[in-house]
Amino acid sequence: MKKMFVIALLAGFAGSVLAQQSLKPEDAIKTRKAAYSFMSWNMGKIKANVDGTFNKEQVVAAANAVAAVANSGLGALFVPGTDKDIGDQKTRLKPEFFQQPDKVKEVGTNFNREANELAKVAATGDVAAIKAQFGKTGATCKACHDNFRKD
Amino acid sequence: MKKMFVIALLAGFAGSVLAQQSLKPEDAIKTRKAAYSFMSWNMGKIKANVDGTFNKEQVVAAANAVAAVANSGLGALFVPGTDKDIGDQKTRLKPEFFQQPDKVKEVGTNFNREANELAKVAATGDVAAIKAQFGKTGATCKACHDNFRKD
Repeated sequence: MKKMFVIALLAGFAGSVLAQQSLKPEDAIKTRKAAYSFMSWNMGKIKANVDGTFNKEQVVAAANAVAAVANSGLGALFVPGTDKDIGDQKTRLKPEFFQQPDKVKEVGTNFNREANELAKVAATGDVAAIKAQFGKTGATCKACHDNFRKD
Repeated sequence: MKKMFVIALLAGFAGSVLAQQSLKPEDAIKTRKAAYSFMSWNMGKIKANVDGTFNKEQVVAAANAVAAVANSGLGALFVPGTDKDIGDQKTRLKPEFFQQPDKVKEVGTNFNREANELAKVAATGDVAAIKAQFGKTGATCKACHDNFRKD
């Protein structure tokens, strides 16, 4: 997991010289919204499990999905100029995202770390520990929203 | 990986009695489209790597993302009645999806198997093997599109 975390940083928020499809700005917005929607669904499943009937296999799969999103190099989808709607792709990204690279790196690093820890903790099946780590992961989502997402 | 594959089947296409958020039909359409968009971006990265400059870390992260989508229990997002547009959520799902459960299970099983194999092969860093397995995985995507997606 530690290795994946380092990879995520290299491939993602810290910038990238890796092979990439060249994405049009509107497709970058669409794809990052898709990534977050998919992740949100998986976070919701984990919440439903820790608050209700717990099924380890579902939680493991969902936590792996959250970590996979975190590790996928989302930074490449934050193309300059995508802090405004483009075509029919609406975005809530604040301009501050492109003005505060150190803060972006901080919130991105925190999210990657906690998401990968969530996958690790999920594998143990310890419900209380998963619930706690779910909370920590959610807090890193909120930190990014508070800083870089319009209401 | 074999275990994850079995989990995916249990949680997904074969039906599920697991804890789920109750999703409105339009949100089920939105979420499954998001999952496929996120996966498509990751498949595109793998293609860019095997056709161009190869970076193992990026390919591993992308293949893990594809497998995580496959393992996430997408079946829960195919709510009855979602073979038509609902609200502002458009879908290309054919009605046949709900009429051919054995075929759905077959294409879903094949996709899960090949996606998990792709993650396994990606971890080896063997470019030729990854390229071959990428092709097999893409073929399972196409099989589902050919059967259940409108043009």
